[in-house]
Amino acid sequence: MALASTADTTLDFGPASALSCRECGTRYDLGPIFACIECFGPLEVAYDFGPVTREEIAAGPTNIWRYRKLLPVPANVETRPNLQPGWTKLVKADTLAAELGLRSLYVKDDSGNPTHSFKDRVVAIALEAARNFGFHTLSCSSTGNLAGAVGAAAARAGLDSCVFIPSDLEAAKITMASVYGGRLVAIDGTYDEVNRFCSELIGDELGEKWGFVNVNLRPYYAEGSKTLAYEIAEQLGWRIPDQIVIPVASGSQLTKIDKGFRELIKLGLVEDKPYRVFGAQAEGCSPVSGAYKAGHDVVQPVKPDTIAKSLAIGNPADGPYVLDIARRTGGAVEDVTDGQVVEAIRLLARTEGIFAETAGGVTVGVLRKLAENGLLDPEAETVVLNTGDGLKTLDAVAAEARPAAVIRPSLAAFRTAFAN
Amino acid sequence: MALASTADTTLDFGPASALSCRECGTRYDLGPIFACIECFGPLEVAYDFGPVTREEIAAGPTNIWRYRKLLPVPANVETRPNLQPGWTKLVKADTLAAELGLRSLYVKDDSGNPTHSFKDRVVAIALEAARNFGFHTLSCSSTGNLAGAVGAAAARAGLDSCVFIPSDLEAAKITMASVYGGRLVAIDGTYDEVNRFCSELIGDELGEKWGFVNVNLRPYYAEGSKTLAYEIAEQLGWRIPDQIVIPVASGSQLTKIDKGFRELIKLGLVEDKPYRVFGAQAEGCSPVSGAYKAGHDVVQPVKPDTIAKSLAIGNPADGPYVLDIARRTGGAVEDVTDGQVVEAIRLLARTEGIFAETAGGVTVGVLRKLAENGLLDPEAETVVLNTGDGLKTLDAVAAEARPAAVIRPSLAAFRTAFAN
Repeated sequence: MALASTADTTLDFGPASALSCRECGTRYDLGPIFACIECFGPLEVAYDFGPVTREEIAAGPTNIWRYRKLLPVPANVETRPNLQPGWTKLVKADTLAAELGLRSLYVKDDSGNPTHSFKDRVVAIALEAARNFGFHTLSCSSTGNLAGAVGAAAARAGLDSCVFIPSDLEAAKITMASVYGGRLVAIDGTYDEVNRFCSELIGDELGEKWGFVNVNLRPYYAEGSKTLAYEIAEQLGWRIPDQIVIPVASGSQLTKIDKGFRELIKLGLVEDKPYRVFGAQAEGCSPVSGAYKAGHDVVQPVKPDTIAKSLAIGNPADGPYVLDIARRTGGAVEDVTDGQVVEAIRLLARTEGIFAETAGGVTVGVLRKLAENGLLDPEAETVVLNTGDGLKTLDAVAAEARPAAVIRPSLAAFRTAFAN
Repeated sequence: MALASTADTTLDFGPASALSCRECGTRYDLGPIFACIECFGPLEVAYDFGPVTREEIAAGPTNIWRYRKLLPVPANVETRPNLQPGWTKLVKADTLAAELGLRSLYVKDDSGNPTHSFKDRVVAIALEAARNFGFHTLSCSSTGNLAGAVGAAAARAGLDSCVFIPSDLEAAKITMASVYGGRLVAIDGTYDEVNRFCSELIGDELGEKWGFVNVNLRPYYAEGSKTLAYEIAEQLGWRIPDQIVIPVASGSQLTKIDKGFRELIKLGLVEDKPYRVFGAQAEGCSPVSGAYKAGHDVVQPVKPDTIAKSLAIGNPADGPYVLDIARRTGGAVEDVTDGQVVEAIRLLARTEGIFAETAGGVTVGVLRKLAENGLLDPEAETVVLNTGDGLKTLDAVAAEARPAAVIRPSLAAFRTAFAN
């Protein structure tokens, strides 16, 4: 395993020691690169972890930087202007569990992040990489949540931003993506087309000194999702859950949560035990679920058509890894219809007071389906992820979530309206 | 000071010992009452505080229950299903400070609460009171944020809910208020009319066993705002800021933050020092600011007309107390136009990556105005509150926060669009 590119001694990525190809293992110096020049496989961050204890983590800040010794960030990351995401609530969901016939259920509610989606986690790591590489502009292709997270993080950090979105996104996500003062460009096309355009832009002089968080900074960015695994384990009292249901867009989040659990085991921070990973997709964009059910190892791209726009990636880069993890751990990949997504949003709101965006409707909908079809063990401790906020996808429920009546302010009017 | 009503020995309000009239001091047993029968003054919670140390607070949960020994809640409140609000970020706002010519500025960002406004704090306390009194339905009159907070809290706790709002609220707030499955009733009238209607409903058999969080549970509810003072002081390293800018709707929040600071001093948890309290209103609903500027002690009701709907209370119950606190502490009450509110929302987003609702635009706009007109000491440590989330008042900025261009996914199109 040779070191391929040249070293820059001014870089500070904390415990991260190199990039490593996930396919062929070729190692590279830490740099703004994302694909192996030997085999075109994706690169990921490799570490030389020092000693880490539960106690020092518990004494850290109430955000993802409590895990800085497990992330590609400098030791002083806490002191630099960033959104300080993470340490979101793990909600014991007893009412929802009872409705679904499960014994022990938790919702990891990432709508509590600064821009109200899990994307703040990954962007915070990418921001440190951008600073390391001296980039002046933070950029991305986005299905919406990432656009807001990048805009906000760049504003806080004092960087420029330029984000690219499909033009048909939810109004809330469009407004949020541009309110932070960066440049927002809508592309007349699908997310996959936006993504291809960004890859083209990186090779062009226009994109010089730009950090595309989910392209040339992707190896760093993706590591942010590990913090979901760390938090869930710590919040359970340093224990990995038996079962976990995770949404699948590109598939990166699911693969990194699995990586995070394995790291905790390797570092002796939790006991080694089996756990089952379940992937959740919307039927209207279910290339990974389709491949899982067909018994395939490869994922056929699809053209998305679903209200779960934040999961609408028709050509998911990490799809094959998701299939591998689901099969290796005894999990599954399942999908639900848009109607079931809306039902699940309302179910979660009604039972636990959590208003999820459509992606959360997908995971809770899949949880329900897995409970019904017996793929989930009802006796086992289960965690389901809500990765975003209902305020960003209001249209999904607005038709049904309305006032029961509009009345004049009088007891007589109230009596008449609610006589039955 | 006589005890007026009958005691119920099954109640558990922790350190709270009685209700006390803020005007005449008459004391009452803890009950679902809110006005003094002697003088019609407002009742507030009186305590017998036991010993409280910084260390035991710091060892508590990362939510408002770390302060349970200072709140009217039972000792086991943590273990009961509730939204666990609080411990939101205190953001060091160096970029905003530089733009406004201030030396040291923090934003207390309460958009990080479960339903993304400070209302989760007050509702969590009211919920415990409702449980104590055996109420089955949680209710309120609301300008929007409270409706969502009550709906979510009732859902989590397994209570029914019925909330009343003016029919002209923002779409996001209406959807959020009803998604949790409770009953939402829109009233064709102003907030003040909704509020009067709720007072009428309490006296009616229809409202029996209903806890109106901001009417018959108001003394308990209002105490939740003290946690903002506690958190700010603790997050500053157990220190009260020199200056604080707080939005004024009913005025309750401002009076309770002042009460919280004074309690911390009295308990020896912070050093005694002077601090200045500033109230912020929208010009279109500025009865308290108007009275302040005119040198009056009483507040003339107004008919609200502002985009800051969450502050649109034309007849603020605690207005006179706000005037008293602003004058006593050397602060002021100021107001800004709707245009300045929008500018301030964009200023905060651009400088700190925080997307505030219109109420946050009011406080940041007033902060700017106070800095410009010299009423604020630029050298003194200052805290400004953002009490809600920009996603709930998108219309305020949607016209300006839009994509810079909509293009085809090609470098040529991008070059053309951004040639200049």
